[in-house]
Amino acid sequence: MSPQRIGLTMGDPAGVGPELVLRALRRPANPSEPQIVVFGHAETLQRCNALLFQDPITYTVVSVDDYAKGAVLPPTGSVIIDHHNLALKQFEVGKLSGDCGEAAFRFIESAIDAALSQKICAVTTAPINKEALHLAGHNYPGHTEIFAERAASSRWCMMQYSTKITCTFVTVHCGYSQVPELLTVERVLDTIELTAEAIERIRHRKPKLIVCGLNPHAGEHGLFGNREEERIIEPAIELARQKGIDLEGPLPPDTVFLPNKLASCDAVVCMYHDQGHIPVKALAFDSAVNTTLGLKILRTSVDHGTAFDIAWKGIAKPDSLFAALELASRLSATS
Amino acid sequence: MSPQRIGLTMGDPAGVGPELVLRALRRPANPSEPQIVVFGHAETLQRCNALLFQDPITYTVVSVDDYAKGAVLPPTGSVIIDHHNLALKQFEVGKLSGDCGEAAFRFIESAIDAALSQKICAVTTAPINKEALHLAGHNYPGHTEIFAERAASSRWCMMQYSTKITCTFVTVHCGYSQVPELLTVERVLDTIELTAEAIERIRHRKPKLIVCGLNPHAGEHGLFGNREEERIIEPAIELARQKGIDLEGPLPPDTVFLPNKLASCDAVVCMYHDQGHIPVKALAFDSAVNTTLGLKILRTSVDHGTAFDIAWKGIAKPDSLFAALELASRLSATS
Repeated sequence: MSPQRIGLTMGDPAGVGPELVLRALRRPANPSEPQIVVFGHAETLQRCNALLFQDPITYTVVSVDDYAKGAVLPPTGSVIIDHHNLALKQFEVGKLSGDCGEAAFRFIESAIDAALSQKICAVTTAPINKEALHLAGHNYPGHTEIFAERAASSRWCMMQYSTKITCTFVTVHCGYSQVPELLTVERVLDTIELTAEAIERIRHRKPKLIVCGLNPHAGEHGLFGNREEERIIEPAIELARQKGIDLEGPLPPDTVFLPNKLASCDAVVCMYHDQGHIPVKALAFDSAVNTTLGLKILRTSVDHGTAFDIAWKGIAKPDSLFAALELASRLSATS
Repeated sequence: MSPQRIGLTMGDPAGVGPELVLRALRRPANPSEPQIVVFGHAETLQRCNALLFQDPITYTVVSVDDYAKGAVLPPTGSVIIDHHNLALKQFEVGKLSGDCGEAAFRFIESAIDAALSQKICAVTTAPINKEALHLAGHNYPGHTEIFAERAASSRWCMMQYSTKITCTFVTVHCGYSQVPELLTVERVLDTIELTAEAIERIRHRKPKLIVCGLNPHAGEHGLFGNREEERIIEPAIELARQKGIDLEGPLPPDTVFLPNKLASCDAVVCMYHDQGHIPVKALAFDSAVNTTLGLKILRTSVDHGTAFDIAWKGIAKPDSLFAALELASRLSATS
């Protein structure tokens, strides 16, 4: 494995992905940081660069076919693995299209192949549009599930990481009403364990976790809900404690994100998407990083969408992408 | 009606209610503010005052029986409507008990009677413990529902108000899994209309509202969930627009509470308890006020619980109660 290379997918070409990738490539090179290998489309990046920046940008272009056949990359400087044969001549910036969905999917696929064959040590992903993905016939709810399938992991979970607030999720991309049937003791325990392992890798010490209830007021001892706290969450917490994990819960979800409570723990285990995404976006809106724990591939991602409305205007903030690259670097350096 | 009097219930005697009521009574009198009429237990207040404060406190004690019979209150100074015949000799501070639940309920009942007979113009409530209420045989999920039943209103909703973030709720105290079946076009529309009316009363102008979706990403056009957005929320929004209400939605719930988005609106209409309570507590943890819109009685409340762990220690912050009294004063002055 080369611990010096992080793959960076370009995301949906019509979104803010290309300009964010360019901003990452245009940062001054730091020899202590891993080399960035972009999985994208060179012509699109050139077009975006010409539109938004005064000066050209230097990188080595390697065709995706040569890379798959084992082409050796230069030891320093940025590299683009160019998916030159995609139908990206005509796409319109800021518009949903199957061509762009297909392209975004192919970038991810190549990056996953590279990570599985240990050409890169981690993948950081720029945003994709799920509807574009579906238009192209790839029926995944998001990055997380594509990686989970390809990296063939039996247990995984999403984590949103920032210095202010870190959440992991027992369920993620499903409808509101599907959540209760997806909660099991095993799944809650898996998420707790994955969270504890990840935080220990990042912070080099045993973490303190908080686990949310599902119902308002954590069910208030059966007053609200179907006793999901007593039936599912509490047994999982008990099993986690027996494994030596320091955790508190199930707590009333709305009390967990009070400033003092949040500061008392390293991460919050959430039962569903918005339980954690709402406070993460409210409190760490431009610095959170999305990562998938438990996969064979280390993967981090920006915590925002394709933002079609501001795409290719040069105003998208790169903070979340930079934080995602940094977290990938930290997690891969210690793993 | 006497617009000069606001009722203040003492809440669960074993919680932080008594000390918060004392803090409200101990503030310097302001002639422009309404007179406070406490619905509580004089002996308990005296006991709490002796424990926490150096100097005695002056107020007029009127027995609840005399008050019910029409006793005339003094025109200025604080008044306690004393529920002297309650079983409150032996209760233990910080402990759940049916006696305290019964007391808390009786304070609320008297305040509601006073408001319905227009002896007071609004009620501000200190926290109650729902389990204590249930131990006493009063099976209500919370204040909101007690007021809704007694004030016989066909449509009402909870509002959490602060200067930073204001949310209203289509559903409140029910289990997570009960929410979808409780959402109807009529109920969403009612909540939107009640919200618009309240904000207009507070801000003296037409409000701008945001309506949340139910599912992650607001369902992302049917990818997640059972199309609750298309079937229920969108039709309600359309009907509200036809009535001249300025609103946006259904938006992905986790994007609504981003700082810029929140600043662009006066209030957020939420589909369920934690969708709004999580960001309110995270962003306005010590200043939010809970109020019930649409009732015949104007009612505001602290946005925290009985806090048994810190009760009667003199450390409970009164900010939320003061804000609740202020909002009651503002809403009743303009209504």
